[in-house]
Amino acid sequence: MKLALFDGHRPGLVVDDDVIDLSPRVSAVTPAGAWSEWLDRHGDFAGVEDIDLAGLARIPLAEVTLDAPLPRPGKIIAAPVNYLDHKIEMSEQKTIAEYGVFLKATSSVLAPGGTVMLPFTDRRTDQEGELGIVIGRTARTVSTEDALSYVAGYTGILDISVRSTEDRSTRKSFDTFTPIGPFLVTPDEVGDADALQLDCWVGGEHRQSVSTSEMIFGVPQLVAYASSIMTLWPGDVIASGTPAGVGALSDGDDIVLEIARIGRLHVAVSAAQAAPYASRPLPRP
Amino acid sequence: MKLALFDGHRPGLVVDDDVIDLSPRVSAVTPAGAWSEWLDRHGDFAGVEDIDLAGLARIPLAEVTLDAPLPRPGKIIAAPVNYLDHKIEMSEQKTIAEYGVFLKATSSVLAPGGTVMLPFTDRRTDQEGELGIVIGRTARTVSTEDALSYVAGYTGILDISVRSTEDRSTRKSFDTFTPIGPFLVTPDEVGDADALQLDCWVGGEHRQSVSTSEMIFGVPQLVAYASSIMTLWPGDVIASGTPAGVGALSDGDDIVLEIARIGRLHVAVSAAQAAPYASRPLPRP
Repeated sequence: MKLALFDGHRPGLVVDDDVIDLSPRVSAVTPAGAWSEWLDRHGDFAGVEDIDLAGLARIPLAEVTLDAPLPRPGKIIAAPVNYLDHKIEMSEQKTIAEYGVFLKATSSVLAPGGTVMLPFTDRRTDQEGELGIVIGRTARTVSTEDALSYVAGYTGILDISVRSTEDRSTRKSFDTFTPIGPFLVTPDEVGDADALQLDCWVGGEHRQSVSTSEMIFGVPQLVAYASSIMTLWPGDVIASGTPAGVGALSDGDDIVLEIARIGRLHVAVSAAQAAPYASRPLPRP
Repeated sequence: MKLALFDGHRPGLVVDDDVIDLSPRVSAVTPAGAWSEWLDRHGDFAGVEDIDLAGLARIPLAEVTLDAPLPRPGKIIAAPVNYLDHKIEMSEQKTIAEYGVFLKATSSVLAPGGTVMLPFTDRRTDQEGELGIVIGRTARTVSTEDALSYVAGYTGILDISVRSTEDRSTRKSFDTFTPIGPFLVTPDEVGDADALQLDCWVGGEHRQSVSTSEMIFGVPQLVAYASSIMTLWPGDVIASGTPAGVGALSDGDDIVLEIARIGRLHVAVSAAQAAPYASRPLPRP
């Protein structure tokens, strides 16, 4: 199944080029959104198949506005250097095995079709296309063998990143820096998540092309590792790291992330609110 | 006012050595807890003064079990090097002005009276005592002049930290690594948060003693800086950084953090679940 949020956080089931509006059957009361709350209650999306679709509206996807399928995850965990070709291009001496994971602010989520706002006029900001892993059940110190049973689905994630001296959490947490989508796709439909073709284009330039089989920590290792540090909750998201081909974004660019079996995530880029790096708040006198 | 959560997330008003059970007047429906939800609705705690206390139970604090006053903040933002004496003891070349802020996992919150679980038998884990700033209203790119109007209160925070090669988010996000409390204290009762005495003892040893006036980024600068990166939501918490005197924790230690006008936060330390560093999940073969 492909699951969406659309037109103001309505939950939807994507069928061919349409979305079936599930909002009469699936409700949400918190900003975390319907699918986070569904996972809180059920642990996976299997029960969505049992929803009676009779009488529900079926709307062409072209006529709706997609929201991020997880508009406010409990945590966004991310992998810093999880492809060897990206390690080389960044002149990194270490990988995720030494760096562990980092956290992105949940306030940085952007919907498909949204606009990444570049913060600085004089600091480079890059795209990083990544496979997103969505946690279904509370996971603490799970083994790599059991890890996939805690995964409720997959999605696309762009880990937008400023290149500067700051901690990763700062450089990667500006508002709009975490586009997520277009859909949540269940594991049965994705198949082997460790063998998916991932491509990313910026302004029409084909910058990234890789199979997720190249990841240093595969999906089970990522889930097991993250759960060895911090308890994972339903609706938490793990961004699994980016391959080589990151590069600077400019005003007016568009970014397309395509992951096989998951879909195309498309966002715009704007420098309309960019300011000089030196204009940020400084220490007290 | 001093506000607590106690005995399974009941909201309480602390008066002298008692707590008045406000749960008949203040309810919560999400894991974020009553005070986060209160701030979502009201933006500050001023309205708590208007609650009719007639008929509410008044219980000695000694007879209740405190919860963390914010059991699941939307974000825990933290300052990496915000005191010059800590910069020197850590041989750091940079401060928060270059590092920015980092994020701790919200799953790492620990209640007062809880037990910090050391993760590793062969890696040092330190206490870091800090002033916690609680956001009341949604804040985005606020000025230092306006910043204090977005602060709903203050609390004590221990930023427990493993010393290893990993990203700060990993080293500081193990479960139990963010004790918060004992109370949320409103700004009128705290007075000048940039001039509070902060002391921390471990196993009876007086390790940390400082005035928050020594912070490189004061409270207004921290709020303004964090809001220049990421939108701050009601109930988000900023840990304002630790002074010199961090040091290793051992099985059986107790940690006491005392901040003037805010109170004493007391937790235990256990190595009962500690494992060798090399036993954590590794890259796939």
